[in-house]
Amino acid sequence: MFRKISHVAIAVKNLDEAIKTFSELTGIENYHIETVEEQKVRVAIFKIGESRIELTQPTSPDSPVAKFIEKRGEGIHHIAFEVDDINEEMNRVKEKNFQLVDSAPRHGANNSLIAFIHPKSVNGVLVELTQEKKGNKNEQ
Amino acid sequence: MFRKISHVAIAVKNLDEAIKTFSELTGIENYHIETVEEQKVRVAIFKIGESRIELTQPTSPDSPVAKFIEKRGEGIHHIAFEVDDINEEMNRVKEKNFQLVDSAPRHGANNSLIAFIHPKSVNGVLVELTQEKKGNKNEQ
Repeated sequence: MFRKISHVAIAVKNLDEAIKTFSELTGIENYHIETVEEQKVRVAIFKIGESRIELTQPTSPDSPVAKFIEKRGEGIHHIAFEVDDINEEMNRVKEKNFQLVDSAPRHGANNSLIAFIHPKSVNGVLVELTQEKKGNKNEQ
Repeated sequence: MFRKISHVAIAVKNLDEAIKTFSELTGIENYHIETVEEQKVRVAIFKIGESRIELTQPTSPDSPVAKFIEKRGEGIHHIAFEVDDINEEMNRVKEKNFQLVDSAPRHGANNSLIAFIHPKSVNGVLVELTQEKKGNKNEQ
């Protein structure tokens, strides 16, 4: 079962400007920045309640996020739900005929294991399943 | 300041089918349905962690959500953040030059007061501020 909204990822062209915008908008000044090589993105992570906003800037024109921006402009890229056991959830949703983008979990931002479900399966929404690993920076 | 993600709203064409999809996807079977006359939508509300997923189907072709679907297809329509005092937050973000869609708070789903910020101000993201009112159905 899905436990909570892990994060909402927003595709942005300029990370520094977007950080300024979201700090001013939310009144939240703390964030940390990560580079996720596999996705070819730099991510600024704002904690808000039990969830996060992840501002995501492509670091290469062939990043999936660069292609998203080229096609649709900046905006919400995906929503991620936290699950306890990502392999179990991947099997469960596959049995329900949701179309997984990933055949096995891979590494995401914030020290997590992730897998994507294709937006065609979910009313146009790109859905990420995420399982947080121990030693997560956001865990105290 | 923004306290948490109140909800993520997803524009859908067929509410009954979308409810089935999200129940199967999330493993969450409980939801309630509301009609928001002002927005000309029917909304199915799923609670997940401290937030909600709101599946939103237009009830009229001139609903803002109908226009969104016509232009971009189904998908994430907006993200809403819960605030303590919506008037205070509206003034605060206006001073920071964010462009408010609403000049005064209005009524939203789930017995709330809401105001939208234009996506042009926020990297293509339609942002809702929401202040929950007393007697909210989701409060126990």
